[in-house]
Amino acid sequence: MTEEEAAPQLDGLRAQIDVVDRDIVRLLNERMRVVEEIGRIKRLAHLPIYEPKRESEVFANVTESNGGPLPADGLRRVFERIIDEARTVQRTRMKQDGA
Amino acid sequence: MTEEEAAPQLDGLRAQIDVVDRDIVRLLNERMRVVEEIGRIKRLAHLPIYEPKRESEVFANVTESNGGPLPADGLRRVFERIIDEARTVQRTRMKQDGA
Repeated sequence: MTEEEAAPQLDGLRAQIDVVDRDIVRLLNERMRVVEEIGRIKRLAHLPIYEPKRESEVFANVTESNGGPLPADGLRRVFERIIDEARTVQRTRMKQDGA
Repeated sequence: MTEEEAAPQLDGLRAQIDVVDRDIVRLLNERMRVVEEIGRIKRLAHLPIYEPKRESEVFANVTESNGGPLPADGLRRVFERIIDEARTVQRTRMKQDGA
């Protein structure tokens, strides 16, 4: 295959990735909004923000639903990052609320 | 709010997160499949796998579509992780194909 033949195919595939990525951004923010709501309820009930047991449940849920090609360890690393960013959002929100 | 009042609300919100997470897993794998196809075409056309310019485009696309509450820097870190895992999948696939 020449570079000239490859170019339009690559363009089309990249456009597909851009669409998928925007869907991922939408879902990440949907997730963050639910996490914020959980944080709000926990503060009202004086419950701890960090719950290792719940994190295990999150990893179990995503690993179970994973059909690949992303391997289990890669998927776990992505969700470790997502959970970490969720904690950062919660901490920022708590500071804003003066908690 | 008491712990007993909070518990069912938290359960419901966590169930929502589990649904969102499974959707994220599905999209991550959809993205990986497109990345694999891009890798296949690049190998056929003898094009380099790593393209910094394309990574900038990916970050621009997701940043532009981000309505929050996830902040721009957090979103970037999540996608750095996703891109890194995509590269790992591509490298594994190239080794399997004996490239």
